[in-house]
Amino acid sequence: MTTHAHAPTPATAAPARGYTATKDQLLTRIRRIEGQVRGIEKMVEDDRYCIDVLTQISAIQAALDKVGLGLLDGHARHCMHEGAEQGRSEEMATEMMAAVGRLMKRG
Amino acid sequence: MTTHAHAPTPATAAPARGYTATKDQLLTRIRRIEGQVRGIEKMVEDDRYCIDVLTQISAIQAALDKVGLGLLDGHARHCMHEGAEQGRSEEMATEMMAAVGRLMKRG
Amino acid sequence: MTTHAHAPTPATAAPARGYTATKDQLLTRIRRIEGQVRGIEKMVEDDRYCIDVLTQISAIQAALDKVGLGLLDGHARHCMHEGAEQGRSEEMATEMMAAVGRLMKRG
Amino acid sequence: MTTHAHAPTPATAAPARGYTATKDQLLTRIRRIEGQVRGIEKMVEDDRYCIDVLTQISAIQAALDKVGLGLLDGHARHCMHEGAEQGRSEEMATEMMAAVGRLMKRG
Repeated sequence: MTTHAHAPTPATAAPARGYTATKDQLLTRIRRIEGQVRGIEKMVEDDRYCIDVLTQISAIQAALDKVGLGLLDGHARHCMHEGAEQGRSEEMATEMMAAVGRLMKRG
Repeated sequence: MTTHAHAPTPATAAPARGYTATKDQLLTRIRRIEGQVRGIEKMVEDDRYCIDVLTQISAIQAALDKVGLGLLDGHARHCMHEGAEQGRSEEMATEMMAAVGRLMKRG
Repeated sequence: MTTHAHAPTPATAAPARGYTATKDQLLTRIRRIEGQVRGIEKMVEDDRYCIDVLTQISAIQAALDKVGLGLLDGHARHCMHEGAEQGRSEEMATEMMAAVGRLMKRG
Repeated sequence: MTTHAHAPTPATAAPARGYTATKDQLLTRIRRIEGQVRGIEKMVEDDRYCIDVLTQISAIQAALDKVGLGLLDGHARHCMHEGAEQGRSEEMATEMMAAVGRLMKRG
């Protein structure tokens, strides 16, 4: 996947994203989710009880929801604001609502 | 987490679970999800556009839903059947419905 | 929609469904949901604040999830049991898993 | 429920909401959902097959999701814009994200 066409960024500096201020915290959360996924891999390898694996899957879904909401929040506060200054409010609202719709339907 | 109390298994052999017949396929799917999670980690490290990260999160959630449904299906077909033979139908139906509820609410 | 082909029922008596024992309670819940939907209709007619309408929509969805889980539970305990006696366990498990998948994806 | 404190409106005129331009269309959709809820009430009264009722519940959830997304979209485009002019961007972003979170978790 290449950088989204709606979000051109200079080649020389890291672009400021909605999550820039909380990037470390976000990465910590994602790494924890990665560990949870490895956890269910191990559970299946060990022939653990189906219902216990399902409980862990629900926990991962909840953690992904939180990461998604956090990204959305940063996007609404920062990127949308910048977009408005560039006269792209409508386009960005459409794009954000499509993302919310995918999160609600889960893909 | 230790093996679920409702599912005692002999110490000498791998217990047969609802997913035993499709264990390799299940592990392949979970490893692919692990790769997808690492993918969003890399996207955040590279300051990629928020909406693109959100799209990937929705894709991971859809993949987890599929794994969850597959586990539930195997459980309903195999474990529930065994449970019925042991007179534990009621208890196992309650347990399964709780798992469905968690999947619907995502944790 | 006509009666589902998998569930033939005698013309002379009400068929026993998974929800037969709790039918009155189920009807009470559905009527309450109907009232909640009329409530958001009134809110929109009165030009009420969008976020307040959204809060009510989430409440209706939670109530529908509960009704759905209750139906599923009755189905798993009663109809699946009868189905098993008629040698239709596989077919009914497939059908139930499809229903769970629709509930998880919401349609 | 009273009108939300964050959305004071003059007593003399209908307040402009994010859905004002599409109010009739929105009301039509909500009335259709009301009819769908009455439909499942009738199905239960008629002892219809559990799985068929569940299919209708999923259809109602999908219709409610669409109404929710439409309200959210109007809110993001109109009310948020007005809010920004009143210096209430932060407060309104917080409020909207809470609504998105409730929609994702369904209440």
